[in-house]
Amino acid sequence: MSRLAATIDRIGGLDEAAAALAARHLDRLTKPPGSLGRLEELAIQLAGITGTPYPTFDRRTIVVAAGDHGVVAQGVSAYPAGVTGQMVANFIAGGAAINALAALVGAEVLVVDVGVASDVVVRAEPGRGGGRLLSRRVRPGTADLSVGPAMSHEEATSAVGVGLELAAQLAAKGVRLVALGEMGIGNTTAASAIVAALTGRPPRDVAGRGTGVGEATWRRKVAVIERGIRVNRPDLADPIGVLAALGGLEIACLVGLALGLAAERIPVIVDGFITGAALLAGSRLCPRLPALVIAAHRSVEPGHTVVLQELGLRPLFDLGLRLGEGTGAALAITLVDAAVRIRDDMATFESAGVATAGGQAAQG
Amino acid sequence: MSRLAATIDRIGGLDEAAAALAARHLDRLTKPPGSLGRLEELAIQLAGITGTPYPTFDRRTIVVAAGDHGVVAQGVSAYPAGVTGQMVANFIAGGAAINALAALVGAEVLVVDVGVASDVVVRAEPGRGGGRLLSRRVRPGTADLSVGPAMSHEEATSAVGVGLELAAQLAAKGVRLVALGEMGIGNTTAASAIVAALTGRPPRDVAGRGTGVGEATWRRKVAVIERGIRVNRPDLADPIGVLAALGGLEIACLVGLALGLAAERIPVIVDGFITGAALLAGSRLCPRLPALVIAAHRSVEPGHTVVLQELGLRPLFDLGLRLGEGTGAALAITLVDAAVRIRDDMATFESAGVATAGGQAAQG
Repeated sequence: MSRLAATIDRIGGLDEAAAALAARHLDRLTKPPGSLGRLEELAIQLAGITGTPYPTFDRRTIVVAAGDHGVVAQGVSAYPAGVTGQMVANFIAGGAAINALAALVGAEVLVVDVGVASDVVVRAEPGRGGGRLLSRRVRPGTADLSVGPAMSHEEATSAVGVGLELAAQLAAKGVRLVALGEMGIGNTTAASAIVAALTGRPPRDVAGRGTGVGEATWRRKVAVIERGIRVNRPDLADPIGVLAALGGLEIACLVGLALGLAAERIPVIVDGFITGAALLAGSRLCPRLPALVIAAHRSVEPGHTVVLQELGLRPLFDLGLRLGEGTGAALAITLVDAAVRIRDDMATFESAGVATAGGQAAQG
Repeated sequence: MSRLAATIDRIGGLDEAAAALAARHLDRLTKPPGSLGRLEELAIQLAGITGTPYPTFDRRTIVVAAGDHGVVAQGVSAYPAGVTGQMVANFIAGGAAINALAALVGAEVLVVDVGVASDVVVRAEPGRGGGRLLSRRVRPGTADLSVGPAMSHEEATSAVGVGLELAAQLAAKGVRLVALGEMGIGNTTAASAIVAALTGRPPRDVAGRGTGVGEATWRRKVAVIERGIRVNRPDLADPIGVLAALGGLEIACLVGLALGLAAERIPVIVDGFITGAALLAGSRLCPRLPALVIAAHRSVEPGHTVVLQELGLRPLFDLGLRLGEGTGAALAITLVDAAVRIRDDMATFESAGVATAGGQAAQG
């Protein structure tokens, strides 16, 4: 059995007993039952994912998978491809948005270079909140998906394998919570192609403005995606083949990470559209996956709403984010922390001497 | 000039120059312009409110205004009136949801008893995260709004004055950010009555399930509100009179707090439906008020959406919260912290050597 198949085999469902214990505990606390809405649901889901009613998340890591995309040759992005490597350097130096938010939530930033095409030159000394770089290049960027496969099936399997291996390493190190993010100039084009292919939705309903392209570039982007799907004719029964056909290396790595962490019962927070596309591909490999992840936010990208609907996920935030890097997922860690605080710090009706609904006299 | 009139006189608009400086700074940071959506808007709004481009919020206070409501005699709540005082004691002891979230965001909890009807007996030693109690009872609970005015015009003015005075004290102590919350069994009935009266919407479109009443109690609640408006015939041109007619003491105090803090250029985060009703009443006294506050979340209460629409406010969260206490507002402090981190910690395109949109070579 392949490592991927063995991992999928280990992925169970939510632990209903742990979830029920968490729910019962929440109802004893001094608040009307369910009145903290999504925070309570989150506490219950975290119990179900981890298989323990009161999990804690002291060690948390934000993994940013990075890779380049040959399709940028078609002029689909507002930024030049070199920005992928420049931003990876920025993550290491601690100057990016994800570093600022990682510091806020006390998370480490781990950047996995699965296929950046340029050299990563770290210009500044890593400061407080700087990230750590893992070099795991499968190839220096993908090929142009609009003229042929973005990579070989073997390369896609390797990139997924990088994610699987990293998940196992994180688990071994005692990481309890992982937020997934990405960096890759051109990757909204690849993600749109994957989502359009896997859902059958027309590319014009899925593709958005990415980091900020104008109308003409958007039209070109849609045409490029249509061509990519036509040229590659990906086999939807083979999700790894879809990743090979349309890219990208960082997306394939995220598929491996999500599956690997689910197998370890480590809660995974997915960020926006790109990580959502990875989750969609992962769900075609393992339909139990979406229930085991937390959707952080609803991205501005229209394709993200398509993904969320397809997977039946309700995101926690809707803040108009469209940056990626894991920024929305990092913010969602604050809600995990809030849910844990509520669960652990509050008094019960009994201990606080507060009457319950219906006016029953409180004990204690 | 009355203290209230003098305060309103001091409330200016957003400082456009400070907001523009903040916006210009954000566009130099290593992210596509505007790609952090509401976080960037928040950083800009905070500059506009405070009148300084880079405000910091080291000292933050959650103010929970508490009061009882005579209308609970009509059986409109799932909880007995005594719970107001019991929960105030819980806030002081540190066992409530708001204490857990205050600890998360490093805020102090200040509970203002503007009109609790029962004794506040603190049963436990105040623990970590316990609140401080300010006794400012104007009267021990309101009268039943469904048979006559909830309080006199003078009492409503006094309760507003408690808020105005507290705002000045907080400013003098160097508090930089205030989240507003409330506690008062029966106060969704009073808030619904205020919102229905001030907007002209029928009570059945405004009143919700509060902390969890069934269908029959909800119908009774709607009928009680209809009767209260009919009996009191509040003069909409006199917002203080509307507060006097319908209550409650804690809502009037929140009106004073919001106005007083706006006059001090201290950002105010409003929580859910009850604080929203106070903000609506405050906006009838000073139409510049809503632009100077931050709406934390969209409550489950239907009347809250009415308030948000009426004031043109977009909340940051939609998490299915319906607890009150300031819990949503406390959570929103995490987004203020995130916005400040983004603004202060990120590198610029120039300093990080990252190319900008269009591929211009980066300097530096």
